[in-house]
Amino acid sequence: MTNIKAYLNEKAEVVNKALEKYFSGIKNCPDNLLEAMKYGTLSGGKRIRAILAMAAAEAVGKKGESVIKIACAAELIHNFSLIHDDLPCMDNDLTRRGKPTCHAKYGETLALLAGDALLIYAFEIALPESSNKLKDYLHFPLALRELAAASGPIGMVGGQVLDIEFSEKEKNISNLLHIHSMKTGALIRGSILAGAIAAGANKNELECLSEYGSNLGLTFQIVDDILDYNEGKKDKISFPAILGLEKSRQKALEATRKAFRAIEPLGEKGKILKEIANYLLEREI
Amino acid sequence: MTNIKAYLNEKAEVVNKALEKYFSGIKNCPDNLLEAMKYGTLSGGKRIRAILAMAAAEAVGKKGESVIKIACAAELIHNFSLIHDDLPCMDNDLTRRGKPTCHAKYGETLALLAGDALLIYAFEIALPESSNKLKDYLHFPLALRELAAASGPIGMVGGQVLDIEFSEKEKNISNLLHIHSMKTGALIRGSILAGAIAAGANKNELECLSEYGSNLGLTFQIVDDILDYNEGKKDKISFPAILGLEKSRQKALEATRKAFRAIEPLGEKGKILKEIANYLLEREI
Repeated sequence: MTNIKAYLNEKAEVVNKALEKYFSGIKNCPDNLLEAMKYGTLSGGKRIRAILAMAAAEAVGKKGESVIKIACAAELIHNFSLIHDDLPCMDNDLTRRGKPTCHAKYGETLALLAGDALLIYAFEIALPESSNKLKDYLHFPLALRELAAASGPIGMVGGQVLDIEFSEKEKNISNLLHIHSMKTGALIRGSILAGAIAAGANKNELECLSEYGSNLGLTFQIVDDILDYNEGKKDKISFPAILGLEKSRQKALEATRKAFRAIEPLGEKGKILKEIANYLLEREI
Repeated sequence: MTNIKAYLNEKAEVVNKALEKYFSGIKNCPDNLLEAMKYGTLSGGKRIRAILAMAAAEAVGKKGESVIKIACAAELIHNFSLIHDDLPCMDNDLTRRGKPTCHAKYGETLALLAGDALLIYAFEIALPESSNKLKDYLHFPLALRELAAASGPIGMVGGQVLDIEFSEKEKNISNLLHIHSMKTGALIRGSILAGAIAAGANKNELECLSEYGSNLGLTFQIVDDILDYNEGKKDKISFPAILGLEKSRQKALEATRKAFRAIEPLGEKGKILKEIANYLLEREI
């Protein structure tokens, strides 16, 4: 059996180094903007989306590192969304990952603009810089389009709108599934598909990975909710608040099984993705 | 002489129709989000950046409409920036183009997210949707990278940070030129270059257009400042506030002349770009 924790740590390190390299490529940007962008991105985080993009590339026979630009784009998009999510007009959160949120540290204006800059820079790093790179990165624009679709009005941002506008009493299980599939699930599935597309996956592989990604996203969110619930956050509407802990665990397990089945056709190459699914089901942080 | 006003009106109409088409392609997005995105984009605006992208494509021998996706991406990026610029933590403006700003109408949260969604959708529409489109839009990813660079930390967003952090007394003419070259100039020049790149421009053409774009951006900002000044907005630091009206007009005229000279090598094909430069110098709105 692969040591999945070692795999995740190793890949997270690859992502962190790449992100630092991309940040060091930003020249002549106001110092405090760059500082806020780095603070919002490099202060922790498990790099799950980036790792999934690389693992999906491996599952279709390419090296994970070959899609590092797409993996880092997914991670920057995720971190942009966290900065904006924490803003006073959104969740108004003052701490994240045990540290002050970006606006708590740099003020609302700079945090807003740091989020905007990260989102734009996500696309910049993953687009070809010159015409002689077009062939090397032939499928990257398709992968980026997948990431954009997963993040925008019909994906993550749309899900944030729904999350805010549904009143607490409207948050029944069916609405909760819908909100989460957009707000969290779309970018998780999108990161997997983008990694695979960038690696030149074929239609059958993408179908398997799409189904895997949807179920993995659901597992991820249910487990997140369970962890929050067990830490005492019982006031917000969540899977355990509606279904109870036991049924929530059951639902996460079912989704993981579906994710497993979805990638059966990939055979041995799907092994790491299965182990990641298992890890995300059983994680305790 | 071309009737430049008729040209601009005709192209603006093409852009508006295309934007409406792209918005109608957003399915299953929360209704109020789509409404706020459309409100922030379709409530007026001269479409200068999109028209410049198309005119630049024409200046290198392609049809303007062939780069409509890049033109609309530039326009969506511009409109995202206006929505965020108007927010309470930024300029806190309640009206724009004679109407309530996006957050004045839809609230701060939805306006923030509508801006985010527009920015993401800008990239989505201009990226190829399937592998059989890759060849048709071969240079579009390069063009998009140019737009991203012009909009992000070393471009427009970086300029917004500088504009906010410089105290009024630090806004001497040298700092003002620097701020505006990033905040406004970068996306104007970027739209021109992106249109030309998407149309397959060569290195020499891009050099001419880069110089043209820098000077056009400067003209645009000085004239904007003069128009605001003449309307009574005399409290903000601007070119006429520092240099006086006469010297500001002189500076705009010089920049326009430089823009003219920059595209001499394009010959007859540069005619429309010259007329646009002249129009932007002499405009009264």
